Amino acid sequence: MSKKILDVVGLCGSLRATSINLMALRLASECTPNHMKLKVFEWYEVPPFDADLYSQGIPSSVLVLRKRLHEADAVLIASPEYNFSIPGMFKNALDWISRGEDQPLRRKPVAILSAAPGPVGGARMQYDLRKVLGFMDAMVMAKPEIFISHATNKFDVDGRCIDETTRRLVTNQMDALAAWTEDIQRISVLRT
Amino acid sequence: MSKKILDVVGLCGSLRATSINLMALRLASECTPNHMKLKVFEWYEVPPFDADLYSQGIPSSVLVLRKRLHEADAVLIASPEYNFSIPGMFKNALDWISRGEDQPLRRKPVAILSAAPGPVGGARMQYDLRKVLGFMDAMVMAKPEIFISHATNKFDVDGRCIDETTRRLVTNQMDALAAWTEDIQRISVLRT
Amino acid sequence: MSKKILDVVGLCGSLRATSINLMALRLASECTPNHMKLKVFEWYEVPPFDADLYSQGIPSSVLVLRKRLHEADAVLIASPEYNFSIPGMFKNALDWISRGEDQPLRRKPVAILSAAPGPVGGARMQYDLRKVLGFMDAMVMAKPEIFISHATNKFDVDGRCIDETTRRLVTNQMDALAAWTEDIQRISVLRT
Amino acid sequence: MSKKILDVVGLCGSLRATSINLMALRLASECTPNHMKLKVFEWYEVPPFDADLYSQGIPSSVLVLRKRLHEADAVLIASPEYNFSIPGMFKNALDWISRGEDQPLRRKPVAILSAAPGPVGGARMQYDLRKVLGFMDAMVMAKPEIFISHATNKFDVDGRCIDETTRRLVTNQMDALAAWTEDIQRISVLRT
Repeated sequence: MSKKILDVVGLCGSLRATSINLMALRLASECTPNHMKLKVFEWYEVPPFDADLYSQGIPSSVLVLRKRLHEADAVLIASPEYNFSIPGMFKNALDWISRGEDQPLRRKPVAILSAAPGPVGGARMQYDLRKVLGFMDAMVMAKPEIFISHATNKFDVDGRCIDETTRRLVTNQMDALAAWTEDIQRISVLRT
Repeated sequence: MSKKILDVVGLCGSLRATSINLMALRLASECTPNHMKLKVFEWYEVPPFDADLYSQGIPSSVLVLRKRLHEADAVLIASPEYNFSIPGMFKNALDWISRGEDQPLRRKPVAILSAAPGPVGGARMQYDLRKVLGFMDAMVMAKPEIFISHATNKFDVDGRCIDETTRRLVTNQMDALAAWTEDIQRISVLRT
Repeated sequence: MSKKILDVVGLCGSLRATSINLMALRLASECTPNHMKLKVFEWYEVPPFDADLYSQGIPSSVLVLRKRLHEADAVLIASPEYNFSIPGMFKNALDWISRGEDQPLRRKPVAILSAAPGPVGGARMQYDLRKVLGFMDAMVMAKPEIFISHATNKFDVDGRCIDETTRRLVTNQMDALAAWTEDIQRISVLRT
Repeated sequence: MSKKILDVVGLCGSLRATSINLMALRLASECTPNHMKLKVFEWYEVPPFDADLYSQGIPSSVLVLRKRLHEADAVLIASPEYNFSIPGMFKNALDWISRGEDQPLRRKPVAILSAAPGPVGGARMQYDLRKVLGFMDAMVMAKPEIFISHATNKFDVDGRCIDETTRRLVTNQMDALAAWTEDIQRISVLRT
């Protein structure tokens, strides 16, 4: 019997067109097990969150992002670290989607990775992000953690990963995310 | 001999026109010692940070904010907590001002307060913000900390503080910020 | 059909005989659903962790604690906040139990609460503790969070809770821990 | 005119006799500027903190540590990361010294470094430690940060640093600590 195809949405924490974290998401999309597909979702039209604006209704770009997250089986976030924490605009997108009763990340399996030019590889950002996602009731996978340090050396000019260790680690994380997603889904089925 | 007037810029972490943290900043402006003046700066035109946009130059709204911070003697940040951390748009403003060699918060005295409707009063946000400001070389005052919990009960419909304990705590923090600012400025003078 | 009785071990973060967090654990033991029993485990004989000592074998007090955790269905931690983080001796106990391949908290449902005399109620400690437990592969329940602020007013001289709101919140958390534990156990059964 | 010799106390976060962080402290003692001397203080006799014990008086080992810190011009902490945070026993020593009105780290210049066998180099620990030290009113130097990753490759069997980059980074940090200490001391003199 064939397994259901797991639909994973990839979110990049950076708006930059040539973001190394976008390259990392593309790498992840090549490293999924056969029954998992990862597609990047471009959330970049989400406007500045403002409670006054929210009181007039949720903007369409947020509605589209929320719908995409609701439908997905799991989420992979790849984000840079800005000033030791989460990039502001990505946090702003999370601030928007958290509004409303139907938290789109509630009970949603989530994995995190980060790529950074420096040696620490985004570690300071990841734990802040885990805290935020915990508030949003996401089921953040604890391990394996991935910090792609010195990341500019690990992708070529076309954005392809040229480091076998990185590729292997990301493959391991995608396998773990598939198992984690199936675990969480079993809980949800049994709860119903 | 009269003391120099200390020029403090107040930054509100929320875009909301009736933000309770904006009310807290106004309270702070009433609670400064005589030789300190606090004025709120509206940073809300700062665009989404994008490294591609940055490569074309720093937007004028960011230049104005950076200039204001460079000129100020000290900074007071009053911010809500969104999803257990810093509001995305405020973090985005910090992400922008951190770009360039002349960090505008370098050696700048900074104090933090937060007002929140719930019982924890924004504590989860404050330590993330301290970490971020540490990266930006700001001199963040350790104490007194202020968490205005159950804040909606502490301001009236016109945004005036009606809680004497809150007023006293904020007065203490403003006195401490004045002393802290003078300390840091003495170091800088002696270094030259 | 009667439900299996869930065996929950309570760990207090403080060594003090009259710790308010120990009182909170006793309150929790009164607030469990019928099919859940909570018993406090006194881990206080665990010696200082030292890698040199570890190389000679795991001390018996650590073996007993590890065995108790392995056998338990779930864990409830009630801890004070010392100097904005986890009490050192409790962290030391966690440092010990994490040694060895068979992590005793792996896939173990864990809930956290904290009682503190001040207004923030231990919030600064809880997120550090969550990070630590995440490393240890524990399944830390995200919500409901409990911060018993101004805790000295909420228990009488005999250590009994005299605050109905606190009792209700702890009851809610114990119900949630029971459901969370059953969820995690279902995953484990299905994985086998 | 010769400068006053700055007296720096080195604290190792690990109890292990051959701790790589102890090696890092010895490296630091070789890298100080001429007017700064660093000596490691062995705090390892500090007993488990227990408020009941504290009520009987501060143990002599804690009094000795507190006195040493009071007398020192500055502190350098080198610590491993255990389970993503501060080693429990080192946190326990901090918990003890924080008791009493005369905080021994108050206004004390402090620098942090960490050595770790893994790639992240202790980063998760350093920010928790900064938060704790902030509570204790220490003046923690923001930069340069040092994370000695893959540290087992950077010291020989006799504990001597064999990596020139590490030696240079530690030298830079010691120079910065000397300047930072002189800055803080100038404030204190001017305040009097």
